[in-house]
Amino acid sequence: MKRKLLIPGLLLTALASGAFAQEKVDAAMVQKIREEGLQRSKVMETAFYLTDVSGPRLAASPGLKRAQNWAVSQLTKWGLVNAKREPWGKFGKGWEVQKNYAAITVPYYHAIIAIPKAWTPGTNGPIKSEVVLIKADTTTDLDKYKGKLQGKVVIFDVATTLKPGFTADAERYADSTLTKMADAKPQGPRQQRPANFANSPQFAAMRRARAMRTAINEFLKTENVGLILSMARGTDGTVFTTNGASYADTAKAVAPELETSGEDYLRILRLIKGGQKVELEADIKTQFFTEDMQEYNVIAEIPGTDKKLKEQVVMLGGHLDSWHAATGATDNAAGSAVMMEAMRILKAVGFKPKRTIRIALWSAEEQGLHGSRNYVLNHLGDPKTMELKPDQKKISAYYNLDNGTGKIRGIYLQGDSAAGPIFKAWLDPFKDLGAGTVTVGNTGGTDHLAFDAVGIPGFQFIQDPLDYGTRTHHTNQDTYDRLVEDDLKQAATIVASFVYHTAQRADMIPRKEQPKPQGTN
Amino acid sequence: MKRKLLIPGLLLTALASGAFAQEKVDAAMVQKIREEGLQRSKVMETAFYLTDVSGPRLAASPGLKRAQNWAVSQLTKWGLVNAKREPWGKFGKGWEVQKNYAAITVPYYHAIIAIPKAWTPGTNGPIKSEVVLIKADTTTDLDKYKGKLQGKVVIFDVATTLKPGFTADAERYADSTLTKMADAKPQGPRQQRPANFANSPQFAAMRRARAMRTAINEFLKTENVGLILSMARGTDGTVFTTNGASYADTAKAVAPELETSGEDYLRILRLIKGGQKVELEADIKTQFFTEDMQEYNVIAEIPGTDKKLKEQVVMLGGHLDSWHAATGATDNAAGSAVMMEAMRILKAVGFKPKRTIRIALWSAEEQGLHGSRNYVLNHLGDPKTMELKPDQKKISAYYNLDNGTGKIRGIYLQGDSAAGPIFKAWLDPFKDLGAGTVTVGNTGGTDHLAFDAVGIPGFQFIQDPLDYGTRTHHTNQDTYDRLVEDDLKQAATIVASFVYHTAQRADMIPRKEQPKPQGTN
Repeated sequence: MKRKLLIPGLLLTALASGAFAQEKVDAAMVQKIREEGLQRSKVMETAFYLTDVSGPRLAASPGLKRAQNWAVSQLTKWGLVNAKREPWGKFGKGWEVQKNYAAITVPYYHAIIAIPKAWTPGTNGPIKSEVVLIKADTTTDLDKYKGKLQGKVVIFDVATTLKPGFTADAERYADSTLTKMADAKPQGPRQQRPANFANSPQFAAMRRARAMRTAINEFLKTENVGLILSMARGTDGTVFTTNGASYADTAKAVAPELETSGEDYLRILRLIKGGQKVELEADIKTQFFTEDMQEYNVIAEIPGTDKKLKEQVVMLGGHLDSWHAATGATDNAAGSAVMMEAMRILKAVGFKPKRTIRIALWSAEEQGLHGSRNYVLNHLGDPKTMELKPDQKKISAYYNLDNGTGKIRGIYLQGDSAAGPIFKAWLDPFKDLGAGTVTVGNTGGTDHLAFDAVGIPGFQFIQDPLDYGTRTHHTNQDTYDRLVEDDLKQAATIVASFVYHTAQRADMIPRKEQPKPQGTN
Repeated sequence: MKRKLLIPGLLLTALASGAFAQEKVDAAMVQKIREEGLQRSKVMETAFYLTDVSGPRLAASPGLKRAQNWAVSQLTKWGLVNAKREPWGKFGKGWEVQKNYAAITVPYYHAIIAIPKAWTPGTNGPIKSEVVLIKADTTTDLDKYKGKLQGKVVIFDVATTLKPGFTADAERYADSTLTKMADAKPQGPRQQRPANFANSPQFAAMRRARAMRTAINEFLKTENVGLILSMARGTDGTVFTTNGASYADTAKAVAPELETSGEDYLRILRLIKGGQKVELEADIKTQFFTEDMQEYNVIAEIPGTDKKLKEQVVMLGGHLDSWHAATGATDNAAGSAVMMEAMRILKAVGFKPKRTIRIALWSAEEQGLHGSRNYVLNHLGDPKTMELKPDQKKISAYYNLDNGTGKIRGIYLQGDSAAGPIFKAWLDPFKDLGAGTVTVGNTGGTDHLAFDAVGIPGFQFIQDPLDYGTRTHHTNQDTYDRLVEDDLKQAATIVASFVYHTAQRADMIPRKEQPKPQGTN
């Protein structure tokens, strides 16, 4: 609140536009970084190993472990030190798909596009059954199915229909959008849900719907159902995926469940509702991994060389884990490859930083930022109590990239207004590459929040959205083909320059007011 | 040529804009037709039976036969007479997919999206093999693979990359586009390729490429290859399909071939080119049908009631066959359902036409308009010689619908300028539904051409393109979900009104100059 009064919108705009900017930019080094990053890039090769070669990288899966091991090895080859998979604590079960086949066989043959929900079991070999439409508004409605669903494939009614795409999948931010971001006012602390929400009719309805779905799923498990079909978001062969069970080692057993493409789901549903018999055959095999319930982050460093400053650290990172239906190219091999490439660029230009530079490739971000949050908890402090460790004071800033393959258009200050003029100056040499916007606004949903929560300046860059929300984010189509080479090169170049300047700056990045322990106001 | 001089562009525009239009419109009947077509439509129910219930409708397949039988039965239920599957001659082998499964298993498991090419054989049970990249610019290059490909999965190099979609999949015609169509000048006869094209370097290159591909495929068949992967057009899970062999009963045997989604194909290719081993398992079963090599059109009538005019016929139709990867909803269950619905509307409003009305649902359009061309040959005349049968004089007009699910925006005159003022008047009551454009221009690619070729006025309506070219036309995503209900209702209503007025008009639709025998100029 205080900060808002001190730096109102207009003044901030003036600061952000560089009127007061005295921040130093090392033009010669920027030029070197640009040449390395734009002309001798390895970012697509890195992305190839993280996606195509490693495969899907669900938290605790063999695919993620392959990618982590490759990253440790590659960062070491580039001359980074202390590269390792660092355990951050207990996560839960690993899981991967080992067979995925389903097709309708009556009224005619048609192989469907569908993805097992993460952490669900398989079918224990091939199954074949009529598809049964489950109609149940209350648990009593389930009684009529008792003893009749053994080995059966089941489906639920939905009201959804699909529409032609009159809007393009991909877009870049318009200048007007960026201007609006730049003009944003500082936001207060994140709004909590109003205290009375828990008593509202909406909440009650939500709770009832969730309870009903849980009851149905438990019933289906008890009845030993063969396979559950649920309708995936997405269209045209694009399937958005989720998890169908918890990864916890204590999680209750569930029935096998396939997230089915809209077109295939609705066809089966229309047929059944139209009085036609539908049969489906399927063979789903999934494998759980319980040998090592820990999960790991990849960490590596370029050590600082200045006697006084080398204990201070500039951090950069992104999460390396993905969902399981594709190879998580834009979510988030893109960010991981860009951050690795930024490190490669800094080594390639022969940079000996004053401060230590540390890259972190997080895990289990998709399940709740677990990798970064536990890193912070282990090394920096506890946001719940705000009991801080000594290293909390030594991290100058953490830079994150996790909004897809789109190029960098600027940076979110996450309320840290004092960093605005600095970043504005650092972006200045990249205006020709489309990056110049500094917004005091917040962005959520990824690992910079873990640092922000303990008072360390944590930033996510503004990235062009492209087709992240429409086609790639968590889908079966998030493959290497979705990566835009020029955008990734641009991003790595800008990140390298930010990290360079953060490492060399006389002072650390200024901090905003220290957050209060979580749960207090 | 003569016609062009007699009716120059400006005068035609004046005619088309209604300045000379005296054509009668039966406003009361139009109102009845609108009410039946827009408020009591059955078009989506019809489409459901043609798509979801019948399945893929490749020429001569069981799916097409199911749809034909259903259409005959439904048209009869609506009160049409002489409904039948009418054989039009020899087509070739029927074919359908009965199992379709393929997945990479090394370096990790991933089920791919891929469709067997039409009329290709299956794998004779499950196979599993390393994927071999075939590099051959000349037949001599093939020697190095001799004896090494037995049972192997093979792939070819391509230079393609995929791009984000910055353009919307679907669009409707802008007013400016329709105005441009309306202003089009009459076109001369279709341009032949220049006589010297056969001697051009481009033609030689095309011929060489085709010969090389044929040589490779024959080599692969001889080597008893397990499965060919070829890259499909399309992205995001959408796969455009084609045929991989001839349907002729004399066709040479070919190897099994899977048209593979761009994302999956390129992933396999990148891995192999990046030095990684890829293994693929597959189980493809396809079935040929050779009991009945004939193919059929569905024909049904509302008989004329005027003593003099009932021998004359108004025809309407569209092709019912489709490609095999989906249920051919927009290509062309849409047009078939609309034409059936137009007949239903005319029966429902109690119409007793002066002229006979005949619907035709063609087959094997996708292989070269075979159904309509053979119908014309059997009943109306031979376009090669222009030897005409007596019935050629009795068909007033043929109306076709086959450009997807988009609503009717007007009609192509196909050079028949004299029909312009008539159609302009008939479209007038549908301006509020977006249909008003009459263009003298031609459109190609579908069954009205068969009638046009023997001098019978044959017309295709102008339809909004929506996502026909980008997502649905010949793809695995051409399902019922792609149909736009309001557009189909609008189209059926307008077609019914056109057919009504053609049946009742004092004169037949005026004809353009009789075409010359094909091959003459």
